[in-house]
Amino acid sequence: MVTGTQPLPCKNPVGDHLLLRSFKNKVDYCRLQGCDVFYSNVYLHPKMDSYWAKLPLIRSAMMAHPEVEWIWWMDADAVVTDMEFKLPLESYKDHNLVVHGWDNMVYGDNENKSWTGLNTGSYLVRNCQWSMDLLQEWSKMGPLTSEYEKWGKILTTMFKDKPFPLPDDQSSLIYLLYKERTKWGKKTYLEGGYELECYWVAMLGRFEEIIFGYNDLEEDVSSLRRRHAEKLSKYYGELREPHLKKRGWVPLSKGKRPFVTHFTGCQPCSGNHNPSYKGETCWKEMEKALNFGDDQVLRKYGFIRKNLSTSYVHEVPFDYPWSNFLR
Amino acid sequence: MVTGTQPLPCKNPVGDHLLLRSFKNKVDYCRLQGCDVFYSNVYLHPKMDSYWAKLPLIRSAMMAHPEVEWIWWMDADAVVTDMEFKLPLESYKDHNLVVHGWDNMVYGDNENKSWTGLNTGSYLVRNCQWSMDLLQEWSKMGPLTSEYEKWGKILTTMFKDKPFPLPDDQSSLIYLLYKERTKWGKKTYLEGGYELECYWVAMLGRFEEIIFGYNDLEEDVSSLRRRHAEKLSKYYGELREPHLKKRGWVPLSKGKRPFVTHFTGCQPCSGNHNPSYKGETCWKEMEKALNFGDDQVLRKYGFIRKNLSTSYVHEVPFDYPWSNFLR
Repeated sequence: MVTGTQPLPCKNPVGDHLLLRSFKNKVDYCRLQGCDVFYSNVYLHPKMDSYWAKLPLIRSAMMAHPEVEWIWWMDADAVVTDMEFKLPLESYKDHNLVVHGWDNMVYGDNENKSWTGLNTGSYLVRNCQWSMDLLQEWSKMGPLTSEYEKWGKILTTMFKDKPFPLPDDQSSLIYLLYKERTKWGKKTYLEGGYELECYWVAMLGRFEEIIFGYNDLEEDVSSLRRRHAEKLSKYYGELREPHLKKRGWVPLSKGKRPFVTHFTGCQPCSGNHNPSYKGETCWKEMEKALNFGDDQVLRKYGFIRKNLSTSYVHEVPFDYPWSNFLR
Repeated sequence: MVTGTQPLPCKNPVGDHLLLRSFKNKVDYCRLQGCDVFYSNVYLHPKMDSYWAKLPLIRSAMMAHPEVEWIWWMDADAVVTDMEFKLPLESYKDHNLVVHGWDNMVYGDNENKSWTGLNTGSYLVRNCQWSMDLLQEWSKMGPLTSEYEKWGKILTTMFKDKPFPLPDDQSSLIYLLYKERTKWGKKTYLEGGYELECYWVAMLGRFEEIIFGYNDLEEDVSSLRRRHAEKLSKYYGELREPHLKKRGWVPLSKGKRPFVTHFTGCQPCSGNHNPSYKGETCWKEMEKALNFGDDQVLRKYGFIRKNLSTSYVHEVPFDYPWSNFLR
């Protein structure tokens, strides 16, 4: 997993605290699932800043990690909210890029075309020559080129809803996929089968409901609430799967924990959040999501929160009845 | 490795940024050396806050990780400044606790006794019953007991230089070792053979000098400057060892990178630094130490800083002559 933020402190007074917790969340997931995580605090190319910084970073991570098949990019404002979810890498055997998106908005006619047709906040890139070539082509639309502004005009003409004049990595990727579908689109998987990244607004008020559902399940199935070593988390995650399916809690359904919740539009560091919601809502929900993920980890250390908006934790009695503990 | 900070954002505007970078530094070390890292943002017991928070945390980490022989506690303000250094665990086979300290100040007569006779900013605890028992005894001098203030008086009487009236974990540990040397002292190793934690003031202005020394060495020995995969870092670290020894750069000597640099007294989060130096000096030196550690990692990704006080990095040409690049 590769992630990162800009070199300087945040302008928003709670920004760096949220970034710290968001990084901890990613480190937790990687420890539980057995993957490496690399965080960058520098721009590898001085002109490739902001959202363009990830491209040279992913390229360098590929070179430094020849043993790795997949690089998973995660934005700093994306939070893992299902610590047991395993990326279904086996289903991507014919693809080199996996990104959350919708066919009609990426490849469809002009009416459906949107700069949010896919989201580059959380995506997978196979460590191979095809990806190296893609990164090179993709970078050519970024701040390195003398035709940067020209590309901005091309993109704003194609995507009527693009809110700013200069090129961004997301619109540029859609452009490449659409214009050269045979070359790039064929090897790109637009994932919509689970929350590779889920817009946080869709999760407003839902985390509590999910917790109660999982608790009910554990009241029925005692093996799932057994206290266990952290190294056995994957085993216990697999044990839970058939029980979730029996209740119809498959990815994208109401009962299932979303895999990744993405606080897109919140901009925790600058604080220049999308004006359609309040900053306060952003920070409060981000804290809830972080606590939701953290509780799944802390429980293995013997603790849990009774309330998602607090950092106050309680000791979990051995094989306790959930109903008495939480209600 | 277990580390952590308090649940709420820092008061110091640059505090959380420094904590974020310090956590990244630890994650980098653990990725390179192959150990797990757990960061805590909560108090596992509401009364065990501040420096006492580590005790219940270490205990829980032991329980959640029965597969782990050693728990390494690191304060948030401690920075790994030699990414290649390997803890000499084999030399601790007869001990259960390893902490940086001095025999005469811990066990010696009253004149030498100091609350800084050892430092609990970075120490190792073996995952065993002895350690569980120690943590229990040790905790009894903390905020959980009704005799908390009484313990404070005992400790300030014993340690004339202790600067605050209530018990802290560090003084309490020295007290236990001194009073029950057979029980606790015998199994405790006071490490002074390398920088398990090094007071940052001792490193003022020295990082640059060390960089030039290592560069000179690499100019002589081409195999050491070979670009390599991150997974081979341990191998290349071992390759460097005999060359360092030949130059007399062994731990604690001037040429060798210090293992851990500890910004004790800086209190990056509260900003209430030790009045004997300026806060600015703290933050600037901490940034230098973080960059010093980061450069050792970044180089494997093909980049390096030319100046330790900047986040501006340069591409390292393949097998470049160091002299032309840096001077």
